[in-house]
Amino acid sequence: MGEMIGKQSVKFAEAPYIFEGASVVGPKEGEGPLGKLFDVIEQDPMLGSKSWEEAESLLQKETVQKLLLKSGLKKEDIRYIFAGDLLGQLIATTFGIMDYEIPFMGLYGACSTMGEGLSLAAMMVAAGYGENVIAMASSHFGSAERQFRFPLEYGNQRPFSATWTVTGCGAAIVTKRKGFARITGVTTGKIIDYGVKDAQNMGACMAPAAADVIYNHLNDFGTAPDDYDKIITGDLGYVGQAILIDLLKRKGIDISKVHMDCGIEMFDKENQDTHSGGSGCGCSATVLTSYVFKQLKKKAWKKILFIPTGALMSPISFNQGKSVPGIAHLVVIESV
Amino acid sequence: MGEMIGKQSVKFAEAPYIFEGASVVGPKEGEGPLGKLFDVIEQDPMLGSKSWEEAESLLQKETVQKLLLKSGLKKEDIRYIFAGDLLGQLIATTFGIMDYEIPFMGLYGACSTMGEGLSLAAMMVAAGYGENVIAMASSHFGSAERQFRFPLEYGNQRPFSATWTVTGCGAAIVTKRKGFARITGVTTGKIIDYGVKDAQNMGACMAPAAADVIYNHLNDFGTAPDDYDKIITGDLGYVGQAILIDLLKRKGIDISKVHMDCGIEMFDKENQDTHSGGSGCGCSATVLTSYVFKQLKKKAWKKILFIPTGALMSPISFNQGKSVPGIAHLVVIESV
Repeated sequence: MGEMIGKQSVKFAEAPYIFEGASVVGPKEGEGPLGKLFDVIEQDPMLGSKSWEEAESLLQKETVQKLLLKSGLKKEDIRYIFAGDLLGQLIATTFGIMDYEIPFMGLYGACSTMGEGLSLAAMMVAAGYGENVIAMASSHFGSAERQFRFPLEYGNQRPFSATWTVTGCGAAIVTKRKGFARITGVTTGKIIDYGVKDAQNMGACMAPAAADVIYNHLNDFGTAPDDYDKIITGDLGYVGQAILIDLLKRKGIDISKVHMDCGIEMFDKENQDTHSGGSGCGCSATVLTSYVFKQLKKKAWKKILFIPTGALMSPISFNQGKSVPGIAHLVVIESV
Repeated sequence: MGEMIGKQSVKFAEAPYIFEGASVVGPKEGEGPLGKLFDVIEQDPMLGSKSWEEAESLLQKETVQKLLLKSGLKKEDIRYIFAGDLLGQLIATTFGIMDYEIPFMGLYGACSTMGEGLSLAAMMVAAGYGENVIAMASSHFGSAERQFRFPLEYGNQRPFSATWTVTGCGAAIVTKRKGFARITGVTTGKIIDYGVKDAQNMGACMAPAAADVIYNHLNDFGTAPDDYDKIITGDLGYVGQAILIDLLKRKGIDISKVHMDCGIEMFDKENQDTHSGGSGCGCSATVLTSYVFKQLKKKAWKKILFIPTGALMSPISFNQGKSVPGIAHLVVIESV
């Protein structure tokens, strides 16, 4: 059960646990500063398959397998899986999880999907609809470039505001069983459009949505940035981080001391040529289930906000001259 | 609150109500046998806009507006909106609902989206996470043809197994307030793949998923087809209907007397050249919120199963030679 708080939040009476997480990434992510923290680094970005899309499906398949193994659960123990990816019609997810035969709810929140999935998983478990629920999200550099931007063979030059789509998949088990952390509340985001039309500057498109959901969360719960050890966005990158901090400062809120962005953490800016940082739903999902979970496990962080951000666009909407609205979903996680 | 029932179902302790529904369709749907039952028939399939995608967004915008009007609610009264469409990255939904500023969870279940949305809306309301929640799904013939099949200008010949994507949007308010019907239970579907690769025969791709979720529902709840006035699938069409009835007969279950398919009801087979029937998430969403809701309101039907079915494919997966797996989500609706 949970209680409605303020305008767009829920606070759980009996907060569900996070029991375990799993992360599988590609070689470039493995060479980054968080490399040692992921469960699996695939050395071949194709995972031995024939297409990027198939490789992304394999990332999902492997992540579920690893998650079940780490948590000592069988696929039959999982009541629901909430999952998604960036590709049209969620084909990476469909072909990735099919064989597990777990009741499935397909989600699309662009790069905010891990926040949407964790929110729903926590809501399900807290309401008694399931004992164990998986939330998962993935992205793949190759499949995302084909979907959204230029053929890789074209060798298009990337502006400095551009981010680099993470090849990776992260998943977590939300459960009634005692785990290392609890999801104590959620704040569900609205679509926010500032009219930015630059698909090579996702940070600017998404920062207003992150600012809006953080602002509403603090209002709904009556908290301040200092109440959290970290306020973690998904893939704003350097450009989006500056905008987010600035937007909140104008409302009298300073998150600069506790803000962290998964996209900034993922790659080494100097040596990996990733410009504004990492992106994709796999970015926040893998950083959460590796680095962030480890910090919570050793209680280095006691209370955090996890806020993956999504840019809502498609090749069609972009080519039709539409703007790129953003959305962000917020989850409160506390160590146990 | 709700209770887990059997393998993949939830039965609500205090079942949430359906308070009102709204449906907006295009001209061809308006000329069909259900024409008089829809709230709005748009005479211009472009709704005065410049693209099919924009027209679909306008369908969503108009449907929410109509729904709020019919139910006497303001946008601020809506806690969540669960919505989706068939287009890559849900652009019809994004640009359709943006202005309402309602916390939004994006769903992709192909043509099963209205079942996924109603399930989640009911789960949210029953758990006390929201007073009023909207579930909505749309499709548009033009945007779907561009997305999935051939340019319309190409004039490709359609086989008799092909369905005709419905131009329409349907939405319902699930709430604590007493309405005309209650959602008393849900059974969440799994991805089922029989290896069918024919994108012009969606009925055959989706029928196994419908059979699976119906079979598991009857097992979980200990009921039989006779316990329901109607068992209503989304868009199997004539071809899929025959397969569904046959698959269940092999398991000793005969639904032939109570089965109805929204795709079959939508168009006049003889005079509208729609071959196997209507399809698209707008098909089941509009038939539910017009014809089916009216039957429940006048208690002509007291207890029904609503089971929209989705074909999980994308142009990329199809061109890469992948099969078209199916999924179906089931909702139990009882008149009050």
